[in-house]
Amino acid sequence: MSSYFGKNLKVSVFGQSHGAGIGMVMDGFPAGFKIDMDALNAFMQRRAPGQNRMTTARKEKDLPKFLSGLVEDTTCGAPMAAVIENTDMRKKDYAAHKLLPRPGHADYTAQIRYGGYQDVSGGGHFSGRLTAPLCIAGGICLQMLESRGIKIMARIRAVHGVEDVKWDMVDPKPMQSVAGKPFPVIDDNAGEKMQAEILDAARKGDSVGGVVEVAAFGVPAGLGDPMFMGVENRVSQALFGIPAVKGVEFGAGFAAAGMYGSENNDAFYEEGPCKTNASGGILGGITSGMPVVARVAIKPTPSIALEQDTIDFETGKAEKVQVNGRHDPCIVPRAVPVVEAVFAMAIMDMLLDAPAF
Amino acid sequence: MSSYFGKNLKVSVFGQSHGAGIGMVMDGFPAGFKIDMDALNAFMQRRAPGQNRMTTARKEKDLPKFLSGLVEDTTCGAPMAAVIENTDMRKKDYAAHKLLPRPGHADYTAQIRYGGYQDVSGGGHFSGRLTAPLCIAGGICLQMLESRGIKIMARIRAVHGVEDVKWDMVDPKPMQSVAGKPFPVIDDNAGEKMQAEILDAARKGDSVGGVVEVAAFGVPAGLGDPMFMGVENRVSQALFGIPAVKGVEFGAGFAAAGMYGSENNDAFYEEGPCKTNASGGILGGITSGMPVVARVAIKPTPSIALEQDTIDFETGKAEKVQVNGRHDPCIVPRAVPVVEAVFAMAIMDMLLDAPAF
Amino acid sequence: MSSYFGKNLKVSVFGQSHGAGIGMVMDGFPAGFKIDMDALNAFMQRRAPGQNRMTTARKEKDLPKFLSGLVEDTTCGAPMAAVIENTDMRKKDYAAHKLLPRPGHADYTAQIRYGGYQDVSGGGHFSGRLTAPLCIAGGICLQMLESRGIKIMARIRAVHGVEDVKWDMVDPKPMQSVAGKPFPVIDDNAGEKMQAEILDAARKGDSVGGVVEVAAFGVPAGLGDPMFMGVENRVSQALFGIPAVKGVEFGAGFAAAGMYGSENNDAFYEEGPCKTNASGGILGGITSGMPVVARVAIKPTPSIALEQDTIDFETGKAEKVQVNGRHDPCIVPRAVPVVEAVFAMAIMDMLLDAPAF
Amino acid sequence: MSSYFGKNLKVSVFGQSHGAGIGMVMDGFPAGFKIDMDALNAFMQRRAPGQNRMTTARKEKDLPKFLSGLVEDTTCGAPMAAVIENTDMRKKDYAAHKLLPRPGHADYTAQIRYGGYQDVSGGGHFSGRLTAPLCIAGGICLQMLESRGIKIMARIRAVHGVEDVKWDMVDPKPMQSVAGKPFPVIDDNAGEKMQAEILDAARKGDSVGGVVEVAAFGVPAGLGDPMFMGVENRVSQALFGIPAVKGVEFGAGFAAAGMYGSENNDAFYEEGPCKTNASGGILGGITSGMPVVARVAIKPTPSIALEQDTIDFETGKAEKVQVNGRHDPCIVPRAVPVVEAVFAMAIMDMLLDAPAF
Repeated sequence: MSSYFGKNLKVSVFGQSHGAGIGMVMDGFPAGFKIDMDALNAFMQRRAPGQNRMTTARKEKDLPKFLSGLVEDTTCGAPMAAVIENTDMRKKDYAAHKLLPRPGHADYTAQIRYGGYQDVSGGGHFSGRLTAPLCIAGGICLQMLESRGIKIMARIRAVHGVEDVKWDMVDPKPMQSVAGKPFPVIDDNAGEKMQAEILDAARKGDSVGGVVEVAAFGVPAGLGDPMFMGVENRVSQALFGIPAVKGVEFGAGFAAAGMYGSENNDAFYEEGPCKTNASGGILGGITSGMPVVARVAIKPTPSIALEQDTIDFETGKAEKVQVNGRHDPCIVPRAVPVVEAVFAMAIMDMLLDAPAF
Repeated sequence: MSSYFGKNLKVSVFGQSHGAGIGMVMDGFPAGFKIDMDALNAFMQRRAPGQNRMTTARKEKDLPKFLSGLVEDTTCGAPMAAVIENTDMRKKDYAAHKLLPRPGHADYTAQIRYGGYQDVSGGGHFSGRLTAPLCIAGGICLQMLESRGIKIMARIRAVHGVEDVKWDMVDPKPMQSVAGKPFPVIDDNAGEKMQAEILDAARKGDSVGGVVEVAAFGVPAGLGDPMFMGVENRVSQALFGIPAVKGVEFGAGFAAAGMYGSENNDAFYEEGPCKTNASGGILGGITSGMPVVARVAIKPTPSIALEQDTIDFETGKAEKVQVNGRHDPCIVPRAVPVVEAVFAMAIMDMLLDAPAF
Repeated sequence: MSSYFGKNLKVSVFGQSHGAGIGMVMDGFPAGFKIDMDALNAFMQRRAPGQNRMTTARKEKDLPKFLSGLVEDTTCGAPMAAVIENTDMRKKDYAAHKLLPRPGHADYTAQIRYGGYQDVSGGGHFSGRLTAPLCIAGGICLQMLESRGIKIMARIRAVHGVEDVKWDMVDPKPMQSVAGKPFPVIDDNAGEKMQAEILDAARKGDSVGGVVEVAAFGVPAGLGDPMFMGVENRVSQALFGIPAVKGVEFGAGFAAAGMYGSENNDAFYEEGPCKTNASGGILGGITSGMPVVARVAIKPTPSIALEQDTIDFETGKAEKVQVNGRHDPCIVPRAVPVVEAVFAMAIMDMLLDAPAF
Repeated sequence: MSSYFGKNLKVSVFGQSHGAGIGMVMDGFPAGFKIDMDALNAFMQRRAPGQNRMTTARKEKDLPKFLSGLVEDTTCGAPMAAVIENTDMRKKDYAAHKLLPRPGHADYTAQIRYGGYQDVSGGGHFSGRLTAPLCIAGGICLQMLESRGIKIMARIRAVHGVEDVKWDMVDPKPMQSVAGKPFPVIDDNAGEKMQAEILDAARKGDSVGGVVEVAAFGVPAGLGDPMFMGVENRVSQALFGIPAVKGVEFGAGFAAAGMYGSENNDAFYEEGPCKTNASGGILGGITSGMPVVARVAIKPTPSIALEQDTIDFETGKAEKVQVNGRHDPCIVPRAVPVVEAVFAMAIMDMLLDAPAF
């Protein structure tokens, strides 16, 4: 069991990279919400490959077809199911990976977990393709949240050590400024350097990782719970569902480990809860009314053209593997809308708690 | 809803800092396991306050009394319930916090979440006291895991920017070397510097944070699942249940964001899965057989003697607050066994999946 | 895993019949509700043994001690934990059951499930004693529901084939009339006959079963969900948690199987939803605003003085067993408050859904 | 939230009667199981309408198309998703039900629950059509269980008060004898009378209900748990997910309420657990190794041609409603495979627990 999330809003994701279709079922979404399908498709396009020279050359429409849950684009209370049919399959690119597990991929662990029965084509269910259904589910949540005054925005915070400018986690303007940018950073000079890193890695047959920062503005105070069902718990469980995420932090995050309490504590003021936001809008697992801020570490794309050591599963002997096919030298840009989507799913799930009764 | 964790092993934690008792119920633990009560109590003592000049002066035995689940210290299959009675209450220390929320604490969010009905004494259910029941549950899991050849060990990785030596995430010896140390670091010189930072902060009426690193050795390959029920998802949901944790990363974690794919990918070899472990023993949410490694960022203790800005909840007017009472200037040392305990709960829960069927 | 229930309101039950204590943890209950402890204790007494010649001679106070979740009897939002300490243990009565499983009891299945490590004294975690914690949790829910205008009442519908009068499932008065009766039936003549059956069975060293009917008045329309999270699903999952329950039906229940659609359909009227209530207040898993009505079949107490065939677990050879000790010849009267309590837990859990958002 | 079931095996059902498609996602099914697609389609056909004069005239193939989870018909560990596209829609038949709720249907409660946004065509997500996806999920589980020596069989036990012969709940032969019968009863004479009842009801423009009995043979002893996660709890939660089910009982069920303990207790014997099976193979929520037996009460089809009282939702005024369209006068025959399917899902979910660890 694996690919579903949520307490009140249940999102179930299915599909393999090269299977007949991928998609999602989202159950528990309130009835009566009209989805803006053009906006949803535009959101999906932000994640889609083939948009510039930094992403894979695959061309996929990735537009969802809704099978249920809607009456004339308005949610009817029944579970929403949407499917993206696969149209661009090239099975042969991947045929060898069953025997030669690619370093950094799930080939090796899937072989053990599923006893060799896993779908190896394109990484099967472990493929980054599966983030498209996450964008369907989360894209709808984003629209709903926006209709309630909650706005979620993400940016590229860093690529291969090149950092965008810091943000105070309070003022929404810098985050708003990245909307619509093809390479969503606050400081475009930093963005240029990041893109240079990516292209440089691509030239070397290598790849690079990065950090995405996401913030939710307008989240009401009082959401969440102490201990295991707090905001951090539920959001991190969701965010680690995005392939390649290896770290999640909130507010000051790991930097708080180097601070004094007097620096890290956000004092309270008459005008609003706080003027600083080291807590990332969360105290005791519960939202404070300040922006909810998280950062996710995204590892370098494991698929690289450089030759790597591996073994042959059948013989157990050492082998070399070179990953061909079409792969992003850095998935961070395409991860930005995925992080927004998954963050939205988690926030929406908490909004559907009934703390006030 | 909040204070329970797990799919197969359900751990429910109850209690308030100054209530009649705190405790836990653990359901789903296999029958027939004999608990070493002396070892459990010794483990609990690692978390207990009052052990040295860096921790609060409170003296608590914190020894659990088992109400159910055992027959002569052996698990009988029924839910285990254990209680720690509170014996050392000083309600008056905290009386003012309801009206004057302490910065960095859950006073403010609890007031909103519970409409003013929360137990304010000592932070109520948000108190660090609640990590004692986590140590009961996790301490038992640690024993069970050890009987299955799985050993979990944590160390202080950093305090206020002072770092212990790096560890290659492969060789267990450096991590084993911290066992039994009163200040569990690999390099005791670094440990001395960390302690100096803590004492310095205490003198200033301030506090500091840090990082705890935890590793599980001997975890079989093939545990976990893709997407939302993977190792990172379940472990992070658990670890963020520890108060003051603001970040969780696995393997190379945030450092992976600055690496090339060729650096971050762990190649496969004939002799064992890998010689490096940037993945932290997890690929695609599933264990690879390498050590499972996580790091948690712990914020500085929010309770500090320095005067801070706050508001009066009743009047809404600006006020000053000074947190008296007995507080650790750094909770990182006491967090070490708590991280081990919670990590063990999550690993145990996954072991109780039936992937092989 | 086993002994917890609920989606929003999590109730975890622990204890063994002859262990140190039994109790419950209830998480997710709204803050700010003042519990009437006298009323709760009076409710607990309705379940307690030793009240008349039809129940076991054991004398137990069964009064809960609250360890957490309350500030001066008012819920504070933290999990509520309550314990009943066992004071009247007679271990020797039961020593033989490990080797000689009692027919109709869980001795046999527990032996297999827990590999012989189960607590055999008094049935361990399978004992009817465990319904006391259910009454703590449910008794509090009953008070909360009543404060919201929802009143739950149960009666003995049948004992050993002797039926109380039918009830139209619409008019609350007949159900209200049983409140406070020591033997809660509408028609006391039927009640006399039932009691005669029970005493007759007791004289024979035998036992009898019966049916409890429960209704919730004032439940708002629109609670519940289609398919697997409907009212019937959640309530039945809860009610089968009461030991000895072997059937659950709603509205006309099994009788509907013998009816025409024209009889079983409840027509809609201007004055209120319906004049009849064959649906038991539930259509498509969702409440209609009519009384929610269920019936539970309770099997005869398996503990009987008559000699029965069994086997010796160690030798596998045929043996005879006679169940001594103190046992109710019919648990139906004491089951009435337990059914109310568990029904209340399930209704409360659904009220904490946020369908309206 | 609503339409998903299971702890280890998660089944999510989507679709509306007249939407683009209906289907299911099943997550957690073990990898490496080869599905017999012909057998699955044959199983689906047992549920399909249009097979004889007692079922609706609609002709639907109802054959599932798998989008994911399989590699050449063998499960690969990824979630299985299957879709049945709707090909035979007649929206106009149902247009009026939004304003005039049909008695016995979910029209009224859905209107309240979903605020008028529900899909009214053909009952939307509440339609009996949604039992087709249940048959996909459960049909696969049935095959898997059979490969493990567990065989599930159901029969019509009663229609409109006409009973098939009783079965001792021990000997599999009578249950096996119904396999392949177009009207699955043990005694075909009783079956003839039942069919006469159905046709008679049809002629009157009315409908009738009935009882389905289901048994699982070969279930190992030791499955399940006490209290809320026992076999009865999990199976009943599943079975009440079938539309029109109003009662569920196990073993002797409601009849046990009229028995002596000495009759209802199943004695243990050397040769096997028991010679009788009043417990329905379940003691203390845990399987005993005897056949697991349940019965479900199915109400008469609410859609009848006879004129019924209702109200107009818009005006609130009294109206008359007559349900046209194509409806089974009795859904019991088509419910038989659905009960088998859902029973199989629940048993399979329990088999995926890891009680032995």
